[in-house]
Amino acid sequence: MMMDDDMENGGLGPYQDRPRTFPNMRSKPYVPMIFRILMRINIRVLFVLLLLCLGVVFYIGASTSPIIVFVFSVCIITFILSIYLCKWVLSKDEGPPEMAQISDAIRDGAEGFFRTQYGTISKMACLLALVIFCIYLFRNTTPQQEASGIGRSNSACITVAAFLLGALCSGIAGYVGMWVSVRANVRVSSAARRSAREALQIAVRAGGFSAIVVVGMAVIGIAILYATFYVWLGVDTPGSMKVTDLPLLLVGYGFGASFVALFAQLGGGIYTKAADVGADLVGKVEQGIPEDDPRNPAVIADLVGDNVGDCAARGADLFESIAAEIISAMILGGTMVQRCKLENPSGFILFPLVVHSFDLVISSIGILSIRSSRDSSVKAPIEDPMAILQKGYSVTVVLAVLTFGASTRWLLYTEQAPSAWLNFALCGLVGIITAYIFVWITKYYTDYKHEPVRALALSSSSGHGTNIIAGVSLGLESTALPVLVISVSIVSAYWLGQTSGLVDESGNPIGGLFGTAVATMGMLSTAAYVLTMDMFGPIADNAGGIVEMSQQPESVREITDVLDAVGNTTKATTKGFAIGSAALASFLLFSAYMDEVATFAQEPFKQVDIAIPEVFVGGLLGSMLIFLFSGWACSAVGKTAQEVVNEVRRQFIERPGIMEYKEKPDYARCVAIVASASLREMIKPGALAIISPLVIGLLFRILGYYTGHALLGAKVVAALLMFATVSGILMALFLNTAGGAWDNAKKFIETGALGGKGSDTHKAAVTGDTVGDPFKDTAGPSLHVLIKMLATITLVMAPIFL
Amino acid sequence: MMMDDDMENGGLGPYQDRPRTFPNMRSKPYVPMIFRILMRINIRVLFVLLLLCLGVVFYIGASTSPIIVFVFSVCIITFILSIYLCKWVLSKDEGPPEMAQISDAIRDGAEGFFRTQYGTISKMACLLALVIFCIYLFRNTTPQQEASGIGRSNSACITVAAFLLGALCSGIAGYVGMWVSVRANVRVSSAARRSAREALQIAVRAGGFSAIVVVGMAVIGIAILYATFYVWLGVDTPGSMKVTDLPLLLVGYGFGASFVALFAQLGGGIYTKAADVGADLVGKVEQGIPEDDPRNPAVIADLVGDNVGDCAARGADLFESIAAEIISAMILGGTMVQRCKLENPSGFILFPLVVHSFDLVISSIGILSIRSSRDSSVKAPIEDPMAILQKGYSVTVVLAVLTFGASTRWLLYTEQAPSAWLNFALCGLVGIITAYIFVWITKYYTDYKHEPVRALALSSSSGHGTNIIAGVSLGLESTALPVLVISVSIVSAYWLGQTSGLVDESGNPIGGLFGTAVATMGMLSTAAYVLTMDMFGPIADNAGGIVEMSQQPESVREITDVLDAVGNTTKATTKGFAIGSAALASFLLFSAYMDEVATFAQEPFKQVDIAIPEVFVGGLLGSMLIFLFSGWACSAVGKTAQEVVNEVRRQFIERPGIMEYKEKPDYARCVAIVASASLREMIKPGALAIISPLVIGLLFRILGYYTGHALLGAKVVAALLMFATVSGILMALFLNTAGGAWDNAKKFIETGALGGKGSDTHKAAVTGDTVGDPFKDTAGPSLHVLIKMLATITLVMAPIFL
Repeated sequence: MMMDDDMENGGLGPYQDRPRTFPNMRSKPYVPMIFRILMRINIRVLFVLLLLCLGVVFYIGASTSPIIVFVFSVCIITFILSIYLCKWVLSKDEGPPEMAQISDAIRDGAEGFFRTQYGTISKMACLLALVIFCIYLFRNTTPQQEASGIGRSNSACITVAAFLLGALCSGIAGYVGMWVSVRANVRVSSAARRSAREALQIAVRAGGFSAIVVVGMAVIGIAILYATFYVWLGVDTPGSMKVTDLPLLLVGYGFGASFVALFAQLGGGIYTKAADVGADLVGKVEQGIPEDDPRNPAVIADLVGDNVGDCAARGADLFESIAAEIISAMILGGTMVQRCKLENPSGFILFPLVVHSFDLVISSIGILSIRSSRDSSVKAPIEDPMAILQKGYSVTVVLAVLTFGASTRWLLYTEQAPSAWLNFALCGLVGIITAYIFVWITKYYTDYKHEPVRALALSSSSGHGTNIIAGVSLGLESTALPVLVISVSIVSAYWLGQTSGLVDESGNPIGGLFGTAVATMGMLSTAAYVLTMDMFGPIADNAGGIVEMSQQPESVREITDVLDAVGNTTKATTKGFAIGSAALASFLLFSAYMDEVATFAQEPFKQVDIAIPEVFVGGLLGSMLIFLFSGWACSAVGKTAQEVVNEVRRQFIERPGIMEYKEKPDYARCVAIVASASLREMIKPGALAIISPLVIGLLFRILGYYTGHALLGAKVVAALLMFATVSGILMALFLNTAGGAWDNAKKFIETGALGGKGSDTHKAAVTGDTVGDPFKDTAGPSLHVLIKMLATITLVMAPIFL
Repeated sequence: MMMDDDMENGGLGPYQDRPRTFPNMRSKPYVPMIFRILMRINIRVLFVLLLLCLGVVFYIGASTSPIIVFVFSVCIITFILSIYLCKWVLSKDEGPPEMAQISDAIRDGAEGFFRTQYGTISKMACLLALVIFCIYLFRNTTPQQEASGIGRSNSACITVAAFLLGALCSGIAGYVGMWVSVRANVRVSSAARRSAREALQIAVRAGGFSAIVVVGMAVIGIAILYATFYVWLGVDTPGSMKVTDLPLLLVGYGFGASFVALFAQLGGGIYTKAADVGADLVGKVEQGIPEDDPRNPAVIADLVGDNVGDCAARGADLFESIAAEIISAMILGGTMVQRCKLENPSGFILFPLVVHSFDLVISSIGILSIRSSRDSSVKAPIEDPMAILQKGYSVTVVLAVLTFGASTRWLLYTEQAPSAWLNFALCGLVGIITAYIFVWITKYYTDYKHEPVRALALSSSSGHGTNIIAGVSLGLESTALPVLVISVSIVSAYWLGQTSGLVDESGNPIGGLFGTAVATMGMLSTAAYVLTMDMFGPIADNAGGIVEMSQQPESVREITDVLDAVGNTTKATTKGFAIGSAALASFLLFSAYMDEVATFAQEPFKQVDIAIPEVFVGGLLGSMLIFLFSGWACSAVGKTAQEVVNEVRRQFIERPGIMEYKEKPDYARCVAIVASASLREMIKPGALAIISPLVIGLLFRILGYYTGHALLGAKVVAALLMFATVSGILMALFLNTAGGAWDNAKKFIETGALGGKGSDTHKAAVTGDTVGDPFKDTAGPSLHVLIKMLATITLVMAPIFL
């Protein structure tokens, strides 16, 4: 006991004198097949091929709209910038061999898991693609499609192609996020030996690289799809499709992205938190060794988890958010323009792509504004990295306001309603302000500078039980302010849109929904920068782990600890941001779903009346889905953690030398156990999310057929979607905030408050932290994805509910 | 430590030799003023007065409908039976003086709290009555009212009178529940010294007494109101009100009942769990003394809590459930009959009253079927009390099926649709089966005979954290089956109703909603027996406490322990039952609300379209209300428990003699602290529940006025109501089941499994139990009431949303 307490307090006893040897677990480096093929090709041929591709893309773009050309150009420029960022990060040194060895082990674990996980996901995606193909092959076509000559097989191919492209892009987004983070982590640790500022800069730029790639790929993917369909289907020529109907063909892309994101988030979330909880329970609580101690057999699994759970999964999550939001806004823009009979509809339809192009530009500026102003060889005193990141964010937000205003004037100006663009610019402002307030509220509830977390820490002093009660009530309470803010912004953006002056043929104002869409875009208009801050978190966390495991001096650990703490806060705030945008986006997707059903059913579908018992039941089932999904996600972590606990205990018993540094723990076994368990456990909640809306929709469609209730299936699914969205928003807010608050309450106590490390209060706080882990990093983020996945699955599968 | 462990294991050391002296805290007995006045009157005069009252009541009843006379007769007969039960219980001996002394202390505490609590509630009720009066005085009257000559002031008086009567009856229901339980507890402990069977019988009969009074009062209160209004307003005479509109005048009664029940449940729930958690945290966890040990200063407060929290509050809760369900079914019956143009509408309108009259009869039979078959002076071996209670329940259910069938044939037979009664009888069967399945599901998830609780207990072996994660996921998962069952029963009852053959003028089937109403009645058709089983729990719990505090021999404690364990299960199952009926009832109340709005607005109000942004926002706010309310309810317990912990710690430090039985703990101070804190803490969540729907409705009414959106306020409130109902059902299921499962996982470990008492596994399970306490006994049950309160408040306040 004495020894353990010493360790907790930093007096590490024999720890410092240990020879610095680490297992070299690195197998041959894994390179995805596509890269292997590309690498075999001569570099000049490759260059020519690339130029050719670019030429084709630009040609198609130019045949579509000059706006598309603009979007392409911006994306390609920022891609080049991102390659610069990547090269800059990779040019940094990997530090001493012991660091590189640990980093190699992490990289192997992460890439191995990624490979297996995405192998499973891609099989499921192919199966689903087949199902979609069959559904579209046997469904009715819409009058628009008949008019434009798109047959059943064509429309099936289009949807499946979009779905697969979305899935592929999401996979690449996840891979890039992980790829850079497993390379940046060791460079950050190495830089931390020199200067805090440099370490911060490397982490930010690495995060920036993947953020730009993720956002850029969402934008360019949709732009290419749009332009290809435009040219291929001969849109806007007589006898073919109208441009305003085009965005509906893109929904497959959004569904593909959210399908992959759901499983990526579930698998990654279960992986990271099972390893974390398992490592902590035996290491910290039972054996009393510090976090990330090399003697803990689960420590590598824990560090791998940060990469697959936070980097890869969050990349896929944000990719899917942006894709879904762009597509739904394009659909709404198209519908509105059609009803307004505007002469030039492209501006309204392509507006979201332009907003995100500017997002790429201004976020890049924000990222580059964080630079190491001092000579990096001088050990500078640690500044507050939060302030530096915040400054970059402020720069980005100010630029966002300016560019957003400019884009609305450029694209949304129409002579029919000369002041409409101003109203929409204000909608965008509403969105930007909402994002800002959301970040602020999340910080208030999860940062230990403020009252709630301090009260939570205080409640730990009367035991584990009161800590949990206080955390749960804090989480439940914290849903109130964000919901009020969302409510105000939905209503005010809708109102601004309605009063924009855009009217349909009979003179009714119709800009409301598009106003809400613009507000969502405003909220996401700094997405790349926010994602950078988010990616920063796990990289800093990993760097800290590497520093700890390679037994660097105290001063280095101090630097990575500060970065890690900041990373925790940015991770929490990003979640607030993600849930806010998910809430708005799914309201848009819901409207798009109603449009889609109306198109297929060839009758108006404007209302979802919850006074009908079946519809009410649909809502009840939708909310239940959220509760069940959250329960399964949490219990998956619990079960997997249990396996880790057993394995770690077994290793400590069977190899008593581990604790005296005389034996090497079997890291690989823990990695393998967590990987296989999390792959197994991700299936159940994932399948629930995908199958249940389909089953419920079909069941009620059949019931409606026998009771003579038209469109019953579609109505019930609509209610399911809405209730699931609302419950999902609240549940995710609850889980994220409670988890973040518990984490920081523990950190607050570890600063020495209320007895500090090792006290009973601290033990109670650790319990809260353990409970919070699956809340905030598995169930909560999976819910963000689930909400949008439900919206896109119902959009794509709409034909089977009719 | 050694000594503490000994205590936990029953070897009580110096404990057995203590002189059996206990504080006599009994002040002069408290008798409510109304009884004091009545007691001063000569008994013969009183008897004559009573007969006179009865005569008037029967005269009014006879002028209304023979069905009302039947209802009156049944109620009065069962009231007489209940007086017999009460006398039977009171005739039992109070045991040795040390028991009586403890019982006196509990009674004082409970009555003191009840007085203060209901003082506060009655002041708030009067204030609210004034508000309602003003609203009804300045609102528009409906065309029906104008036609029947009911002016504004008349309708204001009617609503306020109904509200106050509902509040008063609810108060009496709560008082009766508590009155009998504080008297029965000591008699059960005393009987436990002789025979388990007799103890069981006393507890059941005491519970039965209050159950009959609660249900009977709900029935007779509504019957008297109905008959009075019928006679006073000259219903069905030309130029006056139609009988089908009469039920709408009763909504004030339901609101009064739910208003009182909300505060009773909140205040009582906070009281009981704060005392319990506080007592356990210091007593069990820190000092290692057993539960209900007389050395714990908070032990009396804990025992008082069982009476005010479980008996009084649950009485008020069920009273309100039944009242709300009867009224909403009457409204729906009235509306349907009016649209069907049936010649004799009374049967459909008064059907719910008859169902509950039969409920009283069959439940009485069920209660009386539990008798001490053996000579009570012989110490019989302990039988399984659960089996005995279950047998009584089965008897009641079988009788319920028969009487339900008979009542449908008697009242719902109409020549227009000769087979309608059969369909409705099947609806009732659906309800009865639903109730049965609900009870079964709750048992599956909360009883340690089944897998879920055992898995939860197992998860405690890896620590506090995994125990909480497993409990939370168990609770979240457990929402699925009940929701599926409710969904099936809503849809099938609706379908049975639709196909009953009842059609409106244009030939559309319209019996669907009434079918759902009949299913709800079916579900509640054994309410009195279920309430008996529920009341049995806290009485047995208290008896156990008294036995423990008065240091009875092991064999006596064994008997009360068994009874206590059964009580825990019945309490959990009743909650499942309560939430199921709340779900169905609030769907009915929602339909009634739409009818009401249509009547006031003089235009059809058939749809609540969640595709309108404001309506969606209303739903979002409704769900948020549930989360915030639950959060506040939990944190109220946490805060109050904190105060108890501080006080108990202070007493142990300042009076070190307590632990050696040399000093008397200051029980009264703990009682006073808990009482004042819980009164203070109940205000915030209660006010939230009452004020927020009004504020939101008014705000959106104003917004609708300025944006030209008709009925916006009413629509938003409707969405708020529906989303709050759905989220509330799920949240309550989650909280109740998780809490119950944690409690029983701890009990399972205490049976010796997984290391038994005192092991680390047990400590982790105790943490879960502590967290579960506010979940299952404060927030969860308060949500049942909240759901129905929201439904009745929107019904009564409907005029201000228009």
